[in-house]
Amino acid sequence: MSALEYLQSHHDTILAELIEFASIPSVSTDTAYQAEMERAAQWVADQLTRSRLPDVRIISTLRHPLVYAEWLSAPGKPTIIVYGHYDVQPPDPLDKWMSDPFRPEVRDGRLYARGISDDKGPVFIAIKVAQAYFETTGALPVNVKFLIEGEEEIGSPSLEPFIREHVDMLTADFVLSADGAMWRINEPSITVASRGMTGLEFTVSGAGKDLHSGRHGGAVANPLHAMAQLVASLHTADGRVAAEGFYEQVEALTPDEKAALVALPFEEGDYLQQVDASATFGEAGYTTLERLWTRPTLEVNGLWGGYQGPGSKTVIPSEAHAKITCRLVPNQQPGDIADKIIRHLQANLPSGTRLSIQRDDHGALPYAIAPDHVGLKIAEQALSEVYGQPPLFVRMGGTIPVSEVFKRVCGLDTVFFSFSTADEDFHAPNEFFRLHRLHEGLQAWAIYWERLSKL
Amino acid sequence: MSALEYLQSHHDTILAELIEFASIPSVSTDTAYQAEMERAAQWVADQLTRSRLPDVRIISTLRHPLVYAEWLSAPGKPTIIVYGHYDVQPPDPLDKWMSDPFRPEVRDGRLYARGISDDKGPVFIAIKVAQAYFETTGALPVNVKFLIEGEEEIGSPSLEPFIREHVDMLTADFVLSADGAMWRINEPSITVASRGMTGLEFTVSGAGKDLHSGRHGGAVANPLHAMAQLVASLHTADGRVAAEGFYEQVEALTPDEKAALVALPFEEGDYLQQVDASATFGEAGYTTLERLWTRPTLEVNGLWGGYQGPGSKTVIPSEAHAKITCRLVPNQQPGDIADKIIRHLQANLPSGTRLSIQRDDHGALPYAIAPDHVGLKIAEQALSEVYGQPPLFVRMGGTIPVSEVFKRVCGLDTVFFSFSTADEDFHAPNEFFRLHRLHEGLQAWAIYWERLSKL
Repeated sequence: MSALEYLQSHHDTILAELIEFASIPSVSTDTAYQAEMERAAQWVADQLTRSRLPDVRIISTLRHPLVYAEWLSAPGKPTIIVYGHYDVQPPDPLDKWMSDPFRPEVRDGRLYARGISDDKGPVFIAIKVAQAYFETTGALPVNVKFLIEGEEEIGSPSLEPFIREHVDMLTADFVLSADGAMWRINEPSITVASRGMTGLEFTVSGAGKDLHSGRHGGAVANPLHAMAQLVASLHTADGRVAAEGFYEQVEALTPDEKAALVALPFEEGDYLQQVDASATFGEAGYTTLERLWTRPTLEVNGLWGGYQGPGSKTVIPSEAHAKITCRLVPNQQPGDIADKIIRHLQANLPSGTRLSIQRDDHGALPYAIAPDHVGLKIAEQALSEVYGQPPLFVRMGGTIPVSEVFKRVCGLDTVFFSFSTADEDFHAPNEFFRLHRLHEGLQAWAIYWERLSKL
Repeated sequence: MSALEYLQSHHDTILAELIEFASIPSVSTDTAYQAEMERAAQWVADQLTRSRLPDVRIISTLRHPLVYAEWLSAPGKPTIIVYGHYDVQPPDPLDKWMSDPFRPEVRDGRLYARGISDDKGPVFIAIKVAQAYFETTGALPVNVKFLIEGEEEIGSPSLEPFIREHVDMLTADFVLSADGAMWRINEPSITVASRGMTGLEFTVSGAGKDLHSGRHGGAVANPLHAMAQLVASLHTADGRVAAEGFYEQVEALTPDEKAALVALPFEEGDYLQQVDASATFGEAGYTTLERLWTRPTLEVNGLWGGYQGPGSKTVIPSEAHAKITCRLVPNQQPGDIADKIIRHLQANLPSGTRLSIQRDDHGALPYAIAPDHVGLKIAEQALSEVYGQPPLFVRMGGTIPVSEVFKRVCGLDTVFFSFSTADEDFHAPNEFFRLHRLHEGLQAWAIYWERLSKL
């Protein structure tokens, strides 16, 4: 029996185990889930052990543990680091879910659960492919180091320190990432560039306590009004970020880069249907793909203050809050961009209010891989074989900090080889993972390792 | 024993009963408290019965019951309607309370509890004064009709229909309101005018579902940005409400009215200390008292959307929400002002988003009582006797819908004779009621009825 045959004959078991994995609410951002995070790390370690990887380690960090395992008994063969993560986004807003986010449910060929597409399904594929090789041939075709972290959804704060301290342990030819997501469902694709990120949270305060809006309305500053003015000031009328110097380091696309984007099959109507919107919206003078992949952004991710319950409460609240993240493009530095946003907030604060700012302690640089990288070629071959058509080479608007960290610290490139799809509502209610992608992914990863061993 | 002596010798019992009253979480705006609202109405009815009022009735409405009782056995004497309410504001934000909002606690001569100042303490005074007269003289000095509602904090939607249907039952000389609050703690005061109110809630929608702000940021409208722009557009740079026609019906103060405001003792520094703010803020060209009492306002009472939990969540939410209330001055109509706000929101909605609006089904006209009203004279005498100094005649920025309803429907004026104080943090965490005000109020109400009977 070949590894591919083994995987095909074990689909039901693999699916059942994946459902078990997705049932663990491993929400990394909220300390209330601390015990579940430890349970998830242990579950991943147990799976690696059951897959016959020797020496599986759960490595503590300041927040959530990493799971590491290696098998290096293929002398003369390439060595890859397989990257993925076991942590997930918070499930809020819970009332928008059609099934419990942590009781995975199969509907119409899709498995619904928080984190199933990002990244539990994809990372589980890599683990099961290792098991298939061990069970059928007693060995892997190439040398593999598994590095599965629990902090991806909070910006991977422990990953860089860990990599820095273990540069020798992490020598490899390149990183093969189970995280990253294909662009669309209709054709295979490989992501070759991603945006960076920086974020912050801030509070606008007025009076020291909540006040009755009848008795005091009109005579004291309302932090909700001030917050609205401040947030509105962050963008210009033509959709640009208004903070001074925000675009200072941003370079225009070359004619070739522009042409490559234009050449990609992209129907605005299909995109709008995917995101369930009536129109695109953004920085004037750019196409939708340019906006998504090549332009920096500032998005408010949360905004709140005052009374949110049923009915009305006539209050002028003491405080208003906002959370912001920016996506960065080449040459922008997370710390520098955060500084510029902070200076803008300070300069535009309405009178009668105070501002306090909490910087996110993490950030990520943008990333790109050379188009002729050998890992991309293998990926192209494996995807062509599984899908019967060559993949598109695309960029992504999101951020996978691991790629730029490995590049900066170890000089390693990252090949994104994920089988989730960008429309699978990760970071949103009703996240799902297509079951056929699970099967295709198992096949493609098995082929990838085989092809890589024959280089 | 006189009624006054009875009250003095029963202080401890009265306080214990008031604590029991304030322990009932009678939050009218939230249907989760439905059973507690019924319990509170029954508690008030039982108290009236125990005070020896005959024929106490609990009258159902579409939302929360009214409690009614009358004693009309003082032929030739004036008849008053005693008004108050047993419902309270929601206790949020709970984490700002130093003690449980529904486990009343005495600290430093103050009783802390949600609703204790607005309006449980003040309305309980009137009930206990009735009991004192019945227990000592077997009769009240004047004819009294108690009308205690459970919907004041949600704009009294059932009160006007009830009054309309019971005009004959509610004949009286005037209304004596236990609700209304004195202006400040240092001198007694009588409120002779209040602002009206209208409100609405609205939602700004973008894409039909929450989106990942990395993958989609920059290419679709973010409802939080649109909401911020929309809210920011509601005021001009000089603090005026920007909705077209908002000030159309507003008349300037007469020189006499302006002079009366200037003559009132008012220290801006004391006011700022009371509200714990560093500066006043509002419509350019007006004093703080003019802003508080004589100018209309628009205040956002709640604003929310996206992720509010710990850490970060990189989301572009599908929706953003806001709650608004306006305070109105003479000649402004609640419905007309709501229309104007709605037209402004529609005209200023940023592109790429949709707007849905939910009007509050209630509103209130502003109110004023003639300066020579007999009920005011008696109030002035009673307060002078209790406090040893004549009261100030002041206005209020808040809204007590009952006064304009009684005026419009029955032609009855309302005298506000409340012993709460405007600084007692009603509608805010740590609401309290000063125990000496309880004692002064019991005395003053007993004197009021006695004086009124001797007219």
